[in-house]
Amino acid sequence: MKWEDTERQVCSVARALSVLGERWTLLIIRDAFRGTRRFDDFQASLDITRHRLSERLKKLVSAGVLTRVPYQERPVRYEYRLTRKGLALYPILMTLSQWGDDWMDDGNGPPQYYRHSVCGKITRPVLTCDQCGDPLRPEEVSPQQGSVLSSYVTHLKSTGEALPSEGELARAASQYWQAHIKELS
Amino acid sequence: MKWEDTERQVCSVARALSVLGERWTLLIIRDAFRGTRRFDDFQASLDITRHRLSERLKKLVSAGVLTRVPYQERPVRYEYRLTRKGLALYPILMTLSQWGDDWMDDGNGPPQYYRHSVCGKITRPVLTCDQCGDPLRPEEVSPQQGSVLSSYVTHLKSTGEALPSEGELARAASQYWQAHIKELS
Repeated sequence: MKWEDTERQVCSVARALSVLGERWTLLIIRDAFRGTRRFDDFQASLDITRHRLSERLKKLVSAGVLTRVPYQERPVRYEYRLTRKGLALYPILMTLSQWGDDWMDDGNGPPQYYRHSVCGKITRPVLTCDQCGDPLRPEEVSPQQGSVLSSYVTHLKSTGEALPSEGELARAASQYWQAHIKELS
Repeated sequence: MKWEDTERQVCSVARALSVLGERWTLLIIRDAFRGTRRFDDFQASLDITRHRLSERLKKLVSAGVLTRVPYQERPVRYEYRLTRKGLALYPILMTLSQWGDDWMDDGNGPPQYYRHSVCGKITRPVLTCDQCGDPLRPEEVSPQQGSVLSSYVTHLKSTGEALPSEGELARAASQYWQAHIKELS
């Protein structure tokens, strides 16, 4: 599989990573949340080649995560701002940060703490269930197929084909779905 | 900056991404959470070259996210299992999945739903404050420097040097800290 095909998997993790899952991309997003907006400031922070930075920013703009807004005329210059889709990445950054704090501390404690203005306390983010409020633990959460996956599984059963392993299902369903869409169109 | 230097930044997001922030790595972790353990099964799921898969698995083992466990003798064969450090990646995967559901849906609804066995309901993960239980919103959370960052800022102030932008701080502090450690040792 080519990396470019990940976005067509019937899997939200794969689709998210098709936008975010390359070197530097989430560090650009981190900087954007810290208030960085201009090309030269991203470059000063990340110290990567202009070519690579430009390529990553372009991809984030085309995915609708950042938007280019002119901040100067003659010559026109643009800055990059998080869109609503970009701001929605906040929980991903916070869970990455928490994991780094917990498991990649260099022995000097967390580089940063986070104060929650609602309660005024230093906060640790916890992923919870929106229904009961309890923390979500992997052993207490079971995935259930949505309509695309379940229609693919129904198809396999009807033709007597073997079910692929759970790991392969997202990719196989995507191939089936694309062929199916071609048949329909 | 080289990618290999990200782990030395005084920033937990950068440190986390030094392990996770490359193409395929988080898809390997996704498959591990779905129960995939063997090299050939990861390969069947991801359909990437054996060389690349091997390189990624090796890195995850050396970072302590996966561990190699023999499952067969003569010849000895190994499978890959999530460690505690690996299991702690669960909130990162769930927030990625949620963002994919919300923003990269192809119009067919979420590929998967998640049922929470504690309350029995279909759950949407929410990132909340461990102190007050409210959802964490970026505009209500302020970062505060931990000891390494704040000692670096104190140093800059004492020498009258200009403070770098927030985006650059993590990298500059890391350079200062490394020089400082060299002086001490």
